[in-house]
Amino acid sequence: MEDSRVVEIAEKAKEWTLEAGARLNLSHQEKLNVEYKTSAADIVTQKDKEIEQFFIGNIKTTYPGHYVLGEEGLSDVLPTDTQNGVVWIIDPIDGTTNFVHQNLNYAISVAVYIEGEPSIGYIYDPIKKELFSAIKNQGAFLNDQPLSTLTSCGIEEAVICFNHLWLVPNEKVDYEKMQRLVSDVRGVRYLGSAALEMAYVACGRLDSSLDFRLSPWDIAAGLVILNEVGAEMTTLENQTINVYTKSSTIFSRPGIHQYILEYLS
Amino acid sequence: MEDSRVVEIAEKAKEWTLEAGARLNLSHQEKLNVEYKTSAADIVTQKDKEIEQFFIGNIKTTYPGHYVLGEEGLSDVLPTDTQNGVVWIIDPIDGTTNFVHQNLNYAISVAVYIEGEPSIGYIYDPIKKELFSAIKNQGAFLNDQPLSTLTSCGIEEAVICFNHLWLVPNEKVDYEKMQRLVSDVRGVRYLGSAALEMAYVACGRLDSSLDFRLSPWDIAAGLVILNEVGAEMTTLENQTINVYTKSSTIFSRPGIHQYILEYLS
Repeated sequence: MEDSRVVEIAEKAKEWTLEAGARLNLSHQEKLNVEYKTSAADIVTQKDKEIEQFFIGNIKTTYPGHYVLGEEGLSDVLPTDTQNGVVWIIDPIDGTTNFVHQNLNYAISVAVYIEGEPSIGYIYDPIKKELFSAIKNQGAFLNDQPLSTLTSCGIEEAVICFNHLWLVPNEKVDYEKMQRLVSDVRGVRYLGSAALEMAYVACGRLDSSLDFRLSPWDIAAGLVILNEVGAEMTTLENQTINVYTKSSTIFSRPGIHQYILEYLS
Repeated sequence: MEDSRVVEIAEKAKEWTLEAGARLNLSHQEKLNVEYKTSAADIVTQKDKEIEQFFIGNIKTTYPGHYVLGEEGLSDVLPTDTQNGVVWIIDPIDGTTNFVHQNLNYAISVAVYIEGEPSIGYIYDPIKKELFSAIKNQGAFLNDQPLSTLTSCGIEEAVICFNHLWLVPNEKVDYEKMQRLVSDVRGVRYLGSAALEMAYVACGRLDSSLDFRLSPWDIAAGLVILNEVGAEMTTLENQTINVYTKSSTIFSRPGIHQYILEYLS
């Protein structure tokens, strides 16, 4: 696809993302009608569905040939061959628990994959009005500020991010290894929005982010942004991440990625 | 002390807190000259010292008879009997690691204890421009918005906050009990600023915050604010918190405090 066409799609994606953020900001005074999805920890709100529908409506009107993949299951069944065409991958509210409980630390994540390539990514925090963005090979930005290529750091200087559940016996990773990791780094944080945590790795606020079983919509935009700043990104098993496969992932500043992988192996 | 005098001191405390926040906001473009205090995890900056000195200068000029207790050790030796007189308890930057690494999620904490009573508290997040405040018996506020009295919640609805280090073998608490707690609540977060976490309990963004070995300056302002919204506050051993004693503490919305204490006992 021609660059000018990619930029035009990116402009639309940005416009809709900012408008979705404004809608969320307006909504937080409304009484949220919270449903329970699969568990009490997995809260879904009307707003989640409403924002996804907002994107789908805009995309289908403007680009009838594009596909949409979204969290709330309102969207398309993708063609088997995702290497053709344009696929929008959307998380209307990443960090729904934070949205409901805190009205803080959630994000809208919007990515466009063109002919199989991660091409456009937006992660927007509507409370802090921070828009993280990237177009492939054109660098990443926080609002209008270009993000620098990530430099290396030592593990003892690192502030990393993962869910406390990784320190509880689980099927994915040895919690005793994670305990040693906690003791070795400068600090551990946990925000509760995978997309926002990826954005924070991209701008250097976090040095590494580790996540269980992420879905396409959690990571699609983050992958585009992190790619532009030279972050290291693999699955827990040190494999290349396939955005369409649910996987457990690590995103890091150079220098600590392999070190953390060794903890987990 | 007369109410009008307390309000006058509170106005000064607010004025200086907001000015300190503005100074921090200006400073984050400067190259921070970071020192190491007791460990790599405990970073102290010139700004920490500079802001504490700013408060001390103002307090000593305006109120020569008042005492100041601060983190950076620039301040007074308190009289043995803290029941007399006025004591300012200040943390110039609570969450120094966040300040250095993220320029996010740190706060200025300023409290005034009058004749032994927690009387005035300010916790200010200069990035989000959120000022949490309280004067004893006059309610708590987030900026100009009054904070409601905290209502009760069940443990399975709770979003709580504690350092990942509590899930690593330690001298304070049985990490296996903490693992069970992680599995029982809706979610666990960790911000890395004790003062801000207390403020978030006060406004309902978090339902409980647990902290190891807090010092007076970490909690003094938070105690005033949490008291006004009916939060439950004890040490890990279910004792009344003495602000002048280093202690491990729990601050919660009603309904879950005793439940969490039982986990820990």
